[in-house]
Amino acid sequence: MKVGILGASGYTGEELINLLLNKKDVELVYITSRRYKGKTLGEINPRFKNTRFENLKFEEVNEEKILNCDLIFSCLPHGEAKNILEKYLGKIFIIDLSQDYRKDERAIYGLTNIYDVYTKHPLKRKYDVEKLKKYKIIANPGCYPTSIILPLYPLLKANLIEKDFIICDSKSGTSGAGKSLKENLLFCEVNENFYCYKPKGHRHESEIKYVLNVKNLKFTPHLLPINRGILSTIYFRSEATLKDLIDLLKDFYRNDENVKIIDTYPQLKFVNYTNEAHIYVDYDEENKLFIVLSAIDNLIKGASGQAVENMEILKNYLLKG
Amino acid sequence: MKVGILGASGYTGEELINLLLNKKDVELVYITSRRYKGKTLGEINPRFKNTRFENLKFEEVNEEKILNCDLIFSCLPHGEAKNILEKYLGKIFIIDLSQDYRKDERAIYGLTNIYDVYTKHPLKRKYDVEKLKKYKIIANPGCYPTSIILPLYPLLKANLIEKDFIICDSKSGTSGAGKSLKENLLFCEVNENFYCYKPKGHRHESEIKYVLNVKNLKFTPHLLPINRGILSTIYFRSEATLKDLIDLLKDFYRNDENVKIIDTYPQLKFVNYTNEAHIYVDYDEENKLFIVLSAIDNLIKGASGQAVENMEILKNYLLKG
Amino acid sequence: MKVGILGASGYTGEELINLLLNKKDVELVYITSRRYKGKTLGEINPRFKNTRFENLKFEEVNEEKILNCDLIFSCLPHGEAKNILEKYLGKIFIIDLSQDYRKDERAIYGLTNIYDVYTKHPLKRKYDVEKLKKYKIIANPGCYPTSIILPLYPLLKANLIEKDFIICDSKSGTSGAGKSLKENLLFCEVNENFYCYKPKGHRHESEIKYVLNVKNLKFTPHLLPINRGILSTIYFRSEATLKDLIDLLKDFYRNDENVKIIDTYPQLKFVNYTNEAHIYVDYDEENKLFIVLSAIDNLIKGASGQAVENMEILKNYLLKG
Amino acid sequence: MKVGILGASGYTGEELINLLLNKKDVELVYITSRRYKGKTLGEINPRFKNTRFENLKFEEVNEEKILNCDLIFSCLPHGEAKNILEKYLGKIFIIDLSQDYRKDERAIYGLTNIYDVYTKHPLKRKYDVEKLKKYKIIANPGCYPTSIILPLYPLLKANLIEKDFIICDSKSGTSGAGKSLKENLLFCEVNENFYCYKPKGHRHESEIKYVLNVKNLKFTPHLLPINRGILSTIYFRSEATLKDLIDLLKDFYRNDENVKIIDTYPQLKFVNYTNEAHIYVDYDEENKLFIVLSAIDNLIKGASGQAVENMEILKNYLLKG
Repeated sequence: MKVGILGASGYTGEELINLLLNKKDVELVYITSRRYKGKTLGEINPRFKNTRFENLKFEEVNEEKILNCDLIFSCLPHGEAKNILEKYLGKIFIIDLSQDYRKDERAIYGLTNIYDVYTKHPLKRKYDVEKLKKYKIIANPGCYPTSIILPLYPLLKANLIEKDFIICDSKSGTSGAGKSLKENLLFCEVNENFYCYKPKGHRHESEIKYVLNVKNLKFTPHLLPINRGILSTIYFRSEATLKDLIDLLKDFYRNDENVKIIDTYPQLKFVNYTNEAHIYVDYDEENKLFIVLSAIDNLIKGASGQAVENMEILKNYLLKG
Repeated sequence: MKVGILGASGYTGEELINLLLNKKDVELVYITSRRYKGKTLGEINPRFKNTRFENLKFEEVNEEKILNCDLIFSCLPHGEAKNILEKYLGKIFIIDLSQDYRKDERAIYGLTNIYDVYTKHPLKRKYDVEKLKKYKIIANPGCYPTSIILPLYPLLKANLIEKDFIICDSKSGTSGAGKSLKENLLFCEVNENFYCYKPKGHRHESEIKYVLNVKNLKFTPHLLPINRGILSTIYFRSEATLKDLIDLLKDFYRNDENVKIIDTYPQLKFVNYTNEAHIYVDYDEENKLFIVLSAIDNLIKGASGQAVENMEILKNYLLKG
Repeated sequence: MKVGILGASGYTGEELINLLLNKKDVELVYITSRRYKGKTLGEINPRFKNTRFENLKFEEVNEEKILNCDLIFSCLPHGEAKNILEKYLGKIFIIDLSQDYRKDERAIYGLTNIYDVYTKHPLKRKYDVEKLKKYKIIANPGCYPTSIILPLYPLLKANLIEKDFIICDSKSGTSGAGKSLKENLLFCEVNENFYCYKPKGHRHESEIKYVLNVKNLKFTPHLLPINRGILSTIYFRSEATLKDLIDLLKDFYRNDENVKIIDTYPQLKFVNYTNEAHIYVDYDEENKLFIVLSAIDNLIKGASGQAVENMEILKNYLLKG
Repeated sequence: MKVGILGASGYTGEELINLLLNKKDVELVYITSRRYKGKTLGEINPRFKNTRFENLKFEEVNEEKILNCDLIFSCLPHGEAKNILEKYLGKIFIIDLSQDYRKDERAIYGLTNIYDVYTKHPLKRKYDVEKLKKYKIIANPGCYPTSIILPLYPLLKANLIEKDFIICDSKSGTSGAGKSLKENLLFCEVNENFYCYKPKGHRHESEIKYVLNVKNLKFTPHLLPINRGILSTIYFRSEATLKDLIDLLKDFYRNDENVKIIDTYPQLKFVNYTNEAHIYVDYDEENKLFIVLSAIDNLIKGASGQAVENMEILKNYLLKG
């Protein structure tokens, strides 16, 4: 399988290359980057020296090179992704890590664990294979939405949550902001600091609402002075019992090895550098509120790890029928 | 003024000593610590060398020594504080930094800025000077409660908030957990990590409810991998306009130089190492929710800085009539 | 291959379990820990849930259990290791991660890359297979020594360095100090801090001198406020040219994929979470000094990763003849 | 005293403003910044709200405005400083924080503690008051040089150190690199990372050699993943005893309250946010080497704090005769 990566010099691109190194059936043949154009992976990161990707060179975006691949991962920025990818729809398989196709009806929303691949649960989605064959594009979910949709999707599908009241207070490591040269991303601006950087109207809120099909859901992102990891603290009301909710989630994800409903408080140190989601549910009797804690590594489960899952499902399940 | 500090070897004790160094009219005559007993301040921390406190020695808790002081700051742990302090009530002035007297009717709840010292606002509390003269004890507020009560107290007093729905999602630097030898406080357990450590029933929730006189208020604490600072993200509903809320807060704190209603997102880097509280209010039209962001340094405004404020008010205002 | 780990609850133990998870021919059958006795791996760390090690329970040190293993990794503390391991010498294979056998003539000093397994270089050591068969113990090298011996061993063997002048200024992440409950390892004591914690006489200095067979070598350890990684900055004099030194090192490690002589400055971010060593050599004409920068992940190349290398060499090379 | 700051928007500028806030006899009348031009201090940093500097506006560099000040602090970058300052030499007092005048014979090298202001020690330098009156410029020392020259200057003056062998291995917090938009200063590039960024030829080496008047001195800078603080680990040989060296240093700095010769290992946490230097000396008998550990806050003692010291000495000592 010949694979290319557009925009491969950022944090998700680097993580993706790292993950593909272990996929023996994947041949990485094409990577693009304006920043590192002309340099090899081995030059950019000594970790890639003495590996089969060592001499792969960063190139420009080029139509012929793209069409030469069986699958393209796009790690291009929001906006730029659609501009470049639109004309390849239906021609080659694309897994796009930007937000550009997440609310586009032609694309599969690639939150792998809500589909019935691993577990044939009645509440799970079926892949629209016809659509995929036609447009050949999977929109890889946003990092925050992954942490929030994983616990809420099954509960909302089963009508166990009051829809008019969901608050998602999320905190993310700084790699989620990408590798761009902005003053607020400098080490001394982030280190020993913490703040809410968009108290309302973050674009991930509309992605979450679209996928969950809810109208009222407050999402608030904060910047953690760490490299990776997202923790979402989610508040909602429900008439169900705590046991009902936990049982439903455990059942929904019973064969999804990387989504774990746990009975201890999720910690970023346990999910970082893995493709796992750790979810904890509790009921606060005193305040009549449910609280969900959901943790992922934003670069892996929240981006490149999930992209690789999408690739595997594409290869092993969707394309084989 | 002869001052003593009980339990002076923790983070709040150290910060308090640091702050008192600049108070020329304060004579620090007595500090206690089991851990450092027999050692001098200069030995423990070279920063205190060449200062007037250099040779002050950590001692045991001793009745005579305590009664020899005009004012005792107690940085003893919760529970232990009450055991030791109870018999001195009414005998010498005490500012207690534990939770033990915060819900005790004999004590003044020492959140300085909600009192009418700096600003004679009709919604502000009056000090109960008679009570203070009788029991002589001020309960210094908890760090989380300080960050939450400062914005909510005026709004609730003015009946501008729906009382049955307040969610406070708080994040604190690790010094808030004190200097105790627990595995979960080791560097490698906290660094590059983040989690909610008590999703329900934290003792600060009842402190906040008691002071604000509300029944439903959800408080959730998280541990930040930084030394200092608290950010509370507070969600509530209100029929008032955003302008009403901001105007009320600005008016309430108009002469309190260290409580600032700001129009940018509060960042811990701006409040840390100061005695300030930075408060931001916003309205999320789409979700019909108000959001307040409130930031303090947990060791200064949330503990020792506020304790020094209480000392100053005691000296300059309460005792002079 | 049935494997056991003594003292499996510390940072090296945890990392070792993590690495063994990917070794399909390794059956982990026995782990010990006083701290976590009776608990399962899945309970201690959700990352191990849904893995084949999930239900493995921490037990006590027990002779029968130890003798039931083909190979024991010991992550016990210095001193305690020898007390427990001594009686098993020659009975089962042991890879000891403590310092206790590093200067013991019965043990193989397991710095894998200085042996002639991967590269038959004339300067490389030969394994003393007879000794190994007799005593069956490999002393896994110290973390600091690994970073220092890797560059210096070949250069000294080839007599390219002045022996009376070597200065090694090393800096290590905090996991190197283990998981013990000491005040100086608390988050707020390490974070935003940095210092030299043993300006002379660190036990690793004598380990390095013993292996390198030099009398004058100054080693100075510093504590970095990060979880992992060691950088050693090494100063020495030589009559050789820079090219000579680099060529020799490249030749010595030509087939050792994880020891990389690179032409950029080693950074911990490139070696962390890998089993690699990155080495850079430069000559400062102005001061007539050579400088070597050497970086490893202390928990992997400096401990558990190297232990797994030793296991693999034991399995694939030494025991097969 | 009317004071201006050129290039006031960087880390040293901000720290300087912070320090001047407490100097009641200083009127800050002019600050420049390209980045923040037109904005007020209160807008840029809420910490300055409700202070006497709140409404001071960042302006452009302007001759008239400069000449209107009694004293200019220049925090302009290296190179740019000289271009702008040269024509004001002798006209107004200038304290320049760049490297541009540190080796310029017209300027006073402003390492305050090596002069005979506080202590009339025979080894101390005398201020060249005539030169100062003529050129009116003080070159504020570099941060690394401050940490290195403070311990070495007295020892070299007293001929207690072998001059041909001094190695200074220094580690600095990231604010030392300034606030410029460079990829290598992004949070995720620095955090959990550590490296030597200039193994030879750093410009501070020549500054140190110039001031100490030595030919062989190796200086190596490393980047610490913390905001502030420098620790220099210095190796040298001496025929003197450890006691001789310590006694000399203690005597040399006997009235300099902020230079402390301590008998514990200097830690950045003790010097950060202070204007202090902590110096520790030890002798490694086994390797016949002396080791000095020297710690400062790079932004205060290594930059703005020392600049304020220079201002105070200028006001109180030099100008009064």
